[in-house]
Amino acid sequence: MPHHSLHGGDPSVLRRLNSAATLRALRDGGEATLSELARRVGLSRPTTEGVLGELIDRGLAAEDAPRPGGGLGRPARRYRFRAEAGHALGIDVDAHRVRLLVADLAGEVVGGHRAALAGRAAPGERITAVRAAVRACLAGAGVVRRSLRAVAAGTPGVVAPDGTVTSCTVVPGWEGVHLARELGRSFSCPVLVENDANLAAMAERWRGAARDADDVVCVHAALHTGMGAIIGGRLHRGRWGAAGEIGMLDELGLRDTTASLVPEAGSGPLFEEAERVLDAAGRGSAEARDRVERLAARMARGVAAMALALDPEMIVVGGPLVGSGAPLVAALREHVAPLSLSPVRIEGSELGEESVALGAVRLALDRIDEDLFRLDQPAGRPLLTGPAEQHRGRPPASA
Amino acid sequence: MPHHSLHGGDPSVLRRLNSAATLRALRDGGEATLSELARRVGLSRPTTEGVLGELIDRGLAAEDAPRPGGGLGRPARRYRFRAEAGHALGIDVDAHRVRLLVADLAGEVVGGHRAALAGRAAPGERITAVRAAVRACLAGAGVVRRSLRAVAAGTPGVVAPDGTVTSCTVVPGWEGVHLARELGRSFSCPVLVENDANLAAMAERWRGAARDADDVVCVHAALHTGMGAIIGGRLHRGRWGAAGEIGMLDELGLRDTTASLVPEAGSGPLFEEAERVLDAAGRGSAEARDRVERLAARMARGVAAMALALDPEMIVVGGPLVGSGAPLVAALREHVAPLSLSPVRIEGSELGEESVALGAVRLALDRIDEDLFRLDQPAGRPLLTGPAEQHRGRPPASA
Repeated sequence: MPHHSLHGGDPSVLRRLNSAATLRALRDGGEATLSELARRVGLSRPTTEGVLGELIDRGLAAEDAPRPGGGLGRPARRYRFRAEAGHALGIDVDAHRVRLLVADLAGEVVGGHRAALAGRAAPGERITAVRAAVRACLAGAGVVRRSLRAVAAGTPGVVAPDGTVTSCTVVPGWEGVHLARELGRSFSCPVLVENDANLAAMAERWRGAARDADDVVCVHAALHTGMGAIIGGRLHRGRWGAAGEIGMLDELGLRDTTASLVPEAGSGPLFEEAERVLDAAGRGSAEARDRVERLAARMARGVAAMALALDPEMIVVGGPLVGSGAPLVAALREHVAPLSLSPVRIEGSELGEESVALGAVRLALDRIDEDLFRLDQPAGRPLLTGPAEQHRGRPPASA
Repeated sequence: MPHHSLHGGDPSVLRRLNSAATLRALRDGGEATLSELARRVGLSRPTTEGVLGELIDRGLAAEDAPRPGGGLGRPARRYRFRAEAGHALGIDVDAHRVRLLVADLAGEVVGGHRAALAGRAAPGERITAVRAAVRACLAGAGVVRRSLRAVAAGTPGVVAPDGTVTSCTVVPGWEGVHLARELGRSFSCPVLVENDANLAAMAERWRGAARDADDVVCVHAALHTGMGAIIGGRLHRGRWGAAGEIGMLDELGLRDTTASLVPEAGSGPLFEEAERVLDAAGRGSAEARDRVERLAARMARGVAAMALALDPEMIVVGGPLVGSGAPLVAALREHVAPLSLSPVRIEGSELGEESVALGAVRLALDRIDEDLFRLDQPAGRPLLTGPAEQHRGRPPASA
């Protein structure tokens, strides 16, 4: 009778399972001796040694300097994950600016760059300017282009699963642009594109105010206010990438967020004017406070609608407007509560203006992880760390 | 060196793994001979025989009548899942009615009952009436009470995870009632309580219009209109059980749905009047069609808000009002489209008035499955069917 095991008896799948488990143990658990690593993964010492050799050949692991031990004899060799073996690039592009962050495989940000964009630039010019910013970012960080293993970009608007901007009222001419393909021309690695509020939500969940929450609504206050949702610890994109676009309904008060803070149009660059009002409100100006109050009362309906739809654990309020916007967060807290059924917590973002680029880095790292830990197995199966290997007819090795 | 395997080397966990896998294979794959079953699960024949013996002892499997074979010799014994080994009861209680369905462990509905409730009854009286309906349902179906392995009830309003109704504008005095505990006094099995629109969503996903969809919004049109959401194939309850309560916002047009169809208040029982209007609209009455149009235009804002928040694959429109409500579904389709960003499909429910009770049956069956397939392992781990067992130092048995 044939035995149908999880790995179908295919030794190459088994090898990948062991390799993925060892790599993960080394990356997430920190440097280790061979024996420590074998114990961590639950594999035999000889198997771990073989797998480690392969990871070293692939450039993903390296022998570390031995610790100067106080004991007698030669100290055991130590191994570490080579975080520098590759990089992830995150791009945040909107009508007026592009921001970039580049991180190593351990997620440590090693460089960044920002540049102004011409608000009325055509898509082609805008993309050319983004390319120049990428060059500057990589040069500044000392990262060579071929070290990039994935790139992700965030943009206002709805982004279809294939990376086309299907709807966008903020960036001129952006609608219909296959942004993933256009940006992809500059890179030999995978390039992903995602809505900016969705990336902000990923960043808040990764390193922001939502680190400990699995169900989160992120409010991204910018020119308009967008929303991103984390459900069950993962970004909820929706069937056509349009989840969170509740601002489509005018009565929910999520449009023209920035403009509504500014006394009269045309007095200066919109964002700077709006920031001035928020600063004044923070310093106690009655007129500025009144403006912030009115904006919060208006936005509260949209924020509450999203919260009523999802009943999240918490709401994080961020976006370019919230950098100096503690008064806006406080006012929202007050205005959302009476519209809510649940005692949802509302917190301001701690990530400032980098949230979208940081979320893009996370998305790129997730894509890299897919490749690193890919098993060519049906999706949804967890890593199997050890037992299948241990029982393949060989007596257990003792340490 | 200790070996950290998936089952930690504990033979009782291993036995439960094998038992759960065999039970599932027998239930989902249909009756089988011992050899067929062993092959299906990927266990050895002797192990399968042992597990099957246990399942027979627990009353969950039985030897079936042998098939009259044309061949020579004694036909192989056949085994089947004993769906009649237990039952699940689903209850749908609102201000005016209680509906019940009882199903066996395979989910086949074996009986049902419905009774009118006094609209102004106090919670105690209402629960007493529900108990009487349960007795009538079980008697009519010929199911003894001790055969029930789980009970679930649906109600309008917000239901906290512990089964307390925390908010309800439809059933007098319901707010604050710990409904799970109150109903629980009648049963020795687990009793769950859930929002009615959420249960309708579960029913649509199980046996309704959303069978093939993983991300679904269900619109439950009743006295007010509630919403339930399936995300990634599972009901999304929200942190405090309040997901989908977007109707809290008046401007989204989800309140007083039934009343808005009826020409003048007090002319008769509300639901019957509303059904008369929907029937008339179906027959082409211009005045009735006009009323349905106006209702759809109003509801469309709430339906679109939920769809914009989640960007689902499809929207199913059901609830008591939609039994004869094809005109309402058609009108909603027309009014929601211009408010949407995605080409979402809108379908009418095929489940009629039984959707909430059927969803309650599904919820109860899920609870029973948890017990049947419980492995006392960290949640989220999949069933491991075979290989760990096969390699525990015993040479593979040949069939």
